[in-house]
Amino acid sequence: MANVAFIGLGIMGRPMALNLLRAGHALWVHGRRPETMAPLAEAGATACASPAEAARHAEVSIVMVSDTPDVEQVIFGDFGIVHGARAGSAVVDMSTISPGAARAFAAELRQGGVEMLDAPVSGGEAGAIAATLSIMAGGRPEVFERVRPLFEAMGRNIVLVGGNGAGQVAKACNQVVIAATLQGVAEALTLARRSGVDAARVREALMGGFAGSRILEVHGKRMIERDFRPGFKSRLHQKDLNIVMQAARELGLALPGAALSMQYMNALVGSGDGEFDSAALVKIVERMSGLEP
Amino acid sequence: MANVAFIGLGIMGRPMALNLLRAGHALWVHGRRPETMAPLAEAGATACASPAEAARHAEVSIVMVSDTPDVEQVIFGDFGIVHGARAGSAVVDMSTISPGAARAFAAELRQGGVEMLDAPVSGGEAGAIAATLSIMAGGRPEVFERVRPLFEAMGRNIVLVGGNGAGQVAKACNQVVIAATLQGVAEALTLARRSGVDAARVREALMGGFAGSRILEVHGKRMIERDFRPGFKSRLHQKDLNIVMQAARELGLALPGAALSMQYMNALVGSGDGEFDSAALVKIVERMSGLEP
Repeated sequence: MANVAFIGLGIMGRPMALNLLRAGHALWVHGRRPETMAPLAEAGATACASPAEAARHAEVSIVMVSDTPDVEQVIFGDFGIVHGARAGSAVVDMSTISPGAARAFAAELRQGGVEMLDAPVSGGEAGAIAATLSIMAGGRPEVFERVRPLFEAMGRNIVLVGGNGAGQVAKACNQVVIAATLQGVAEALTLARRSGVDAARVREALMGGFAGSRILEVHGKRMIERDFRPGFKSRLHQKDLNIVMQAARELGLALPGAALSMQYMNALVGSGDGEFDSAALVKIVERMSGLEP
Repeated sequence: MANVAFIGLGIMGRPMALNLLRAGHALWVHGRRPETMAPLAEAGATACASPAEAARHAEVSIVMVSDTPDVEQVIFGDFGIVHGARAGSAVVDMSTISPGAARAFAAELRQGGVEMLDAPVSGGEAGAIAATLSIMAGGRPEVFERVRPLFEAMGRNIVLVGGNGAGQVAKACNQVVIAATLQGVAEALTLARRSGVDAARVREALMGGFAGSRILEVHGKRMIERDFRPGFKSRLHQKDLNIVMQAARELGLALPGAALSMQYMNALVGSGDGEFDSAALVKIVERMSGLEP
């Protein structure tokens, strides 16, 4: 069993940390909002005043926050992990951030003798609670093997994709595929509806063939039933596609489909639907052509 | 067992007709190119000089040709089905054509006492041979029930989606979803490659989660292995998306994602890859940004 620091106790981080506790690991936790630490402390974790303090006790420091600047602050800020982490320990960033930043953070940590993995996840709050997250990791194989028991307490389908940053690249790819599929399903179901055909029957007809996907199954159903409770919030999908667009620009890579997905997410957030599941994308398709909800 | 006319003995029609023969039905067949009739005649079908002659013997006349004008010619042309079909018989068009044309053809046939179903398929040549096609039907329920045993000899996942034209609407939706997913997978795998990350590992990492789909599984593999043998030819996907664009225009419906898919297919066919599987879409994404194949 390992001594683990866990920084970031939001919708995702809290159930992930609880699953580590349940698996028998010792946890030192820190959340920006102190009240997020209470349920973890009740479950046996030690609440800490800063990331540095949590990292002081740990062989592995896990970070699960929102975006690139948050990760930078948690690791390198005034009371950040670097001020507590021992040489030989590892930082595992499970947030979704830019692949370039992930590589830069790893290089900087390595100078102080601290290893890093990027290990973003897919599967949402439900996957975090059920410990069924997909985990896409980047970093050195020996570090990955050391951390694997912790990953196994939080997810399944755990893949070391490549070196530092490769996990974030895989996550970016994941969000591109999900957004494109969502968009295809939303446009198809709207085409059915506008044609006077029952969208639920169309979904059923499509499920068995090459159009079949988890998105058609789960999000197609949400679109038909108008159930847009998250799931995965569209403002987070917008944030992730922004990472994709930034990476594409840095790489000199045209991704016309992902660029369109970005616009759909912008429209969704701009319409006040940022807190809803990104399946609400169907509302943009409908609204554009004057269909009532 | 039924007396069946089968018009159109190409890559799809021939194995479908053979499966009907194997199921014990009596077949009168016609193909535009006489040599296509020989293997069917050897298997026990009667070769006919025209669609009208084939229809004369049949309770059900099945049409499996390429595009809307071909279907119109086969049904309503000089030696078309209408000149042979008996009142009370049914025409089942399994080609992929415009939903509006399908509705118009059904209305015209009904005036002569002939029923019609549109029943396009998904699953490609492999599905036609293995009798595992998905069949999306539109028309009257009692006609659908009468024809169902024939469908069951050619496919599975057989759904009556709605009235005349609804099968074609479902097929249009199917092609929109497939094209969007293909595009998402092609852009994602190219993002991985350009980032210096192994695309095969990324595909593996994505398979278990919400990005999972038949397209990621089958066509993602084709993209990685550079195996673009059809499968489903991109020039046919182009034709089908053209039907979608035409329907969208008639309906006053904006489908930005499908419009982009149409452009990808145009580029693919224009690049001389029309006879390859539409998974070759990845080549357009690569070429746009100067990646070597």
